[in-house]
Amino acid sequence: MSNVSLLTELIDSLKCLPGVGQKSAQRMAYHLLDSNRQGALQLSNVLNESMQRIGNCERCRDYTEEKLCSLCANPRRDITTLCVVESPSDVLAIESTASFSGLFFVLLGQLSPLDGIGPEEIGMPLLAERLALGEVEEVIVATSSTIEGEATAHYIAQLAHKYNSKIKVSRLAQGVPLGGELGYLDQSTLALSIANRNRLD
Amino acid sequence: MSNVSLLTELIDSLKCLPGVGQKSAQRMAYHLLDSNRQGALQLSNVLNESMQRIGNCERCRDYTEEKLCSLCANPRRDITTLCVVESPSDVLAIESTASFSGLFFVLLGQLSPLDGIGPEEIGMPLLAERLALGEVEEVIVATSSTIEGEATAHYIAQLAHKYNSKIKVSRLAQGVPLGGELGYLDQSTLALSIANRNRLD
Repeated sequence: MSNVSLLTELIDSLKCLPGVGQKSAQRMAYHLLDSNRQGALQLSNVLNESMQRIGNCERCRDYTEEKLCSLCANPRRDITTLCVVESPSDVLAIESTASFSGLFFVLLGQLSPLDGIGPEEIGMPLLAERLALGEVEEVIVATSSTIEGEATAHYIAQLAHKYNSKIKVSRLAQGVPLGGELGYLDQSTLALSIANRNRLD
Repeated sequence: MSNVSLLTELIDSLKCLPGVGQKSAQRMAYHLLDSNRQGALQLSNVLNESMQRIGNCERCRDYTEEKLCSLCANPRRDITTLCVVESPSDVLAIESTASFSGLFFVLLGQLSPLDGIGPEEIGMPLLAERLALGEVEEVIVATSSTIEGEATAHYIAQLAHKYNSKIKVSRLAQGVPLGGELGYLDQSTLALSIANRNRLD
């Protein structure tokens, strides 16, 4: 008999999932063993296949197991608008709003010279190729509202204007979130939302 | 290209884990793809192996990939005390207290005639064999404090006395939990803890 039982190993392996500690991992392991072995086997197969086969789209760098992701391959998307995001999960977030019909470009990171992440690492050459095609009329920069995110946005704006001085570059609006109470909002956001106030009429 | 992408399939499969809905599954899938593909492949292997190989101990019905679980195979455990629990996770819970050195018997359920779960289904023949050996001097019945749990406990007490009239059958103490505030406790538990009060001297 080995020192570490298979059950212990299963519990330890489940802890690689984000937000899953010892207690949740135990609960998951017992639940699967008790009542869903079929589901667990299915999960095992899909996990294995996903990790081996999911790569990045050749055009936008989003996750896909094909050469082109389903968005880039969709002829009904608006090719004149390009939304630049930091990670594949941001694509999902924006797609879930159903209010954007253009295409995406995924940076897979943000400019951070101190960590050795320069323009090459965030796919700027690929974005430059894309802009050089002349199809894109507006670039929406949807990077985080952090120092690195702002620097990245600034870099992308410059790059876009280098290829086409008439290209529109925009940034996501900042302000009070829907349903947000002013009392709980930080000062900087509040100050910004006053400065960028919209006319009601 | 298939209609359902591998990523969507991965997110759906992750939902077989207890407490994991659409949002958590998305977070898990992206986290694994972004930064822990090795961990995910490891999890896939261990899941597969666990679901195929983990069965029940021949003696106590706890989960194990061997014939006997590590507790039953351990010669240092006290074979005269037997704790009867409903599920393998209860074994883990009691073991984590480090205050019990006897052996276990796992019912894998509780008596529930309406659902077609009778003595056979909860391993009573195996428990009877064990009691017939004459080693066990005390049976601690640690079933749930529900109607089915109480019925199961009653059945086990009768079974034990049938094999050995001198056998001690006990039940877990019931009362106020440590750190519990009386104001938040239900009436029945409080009434029980008054009836079973302990002398301080």
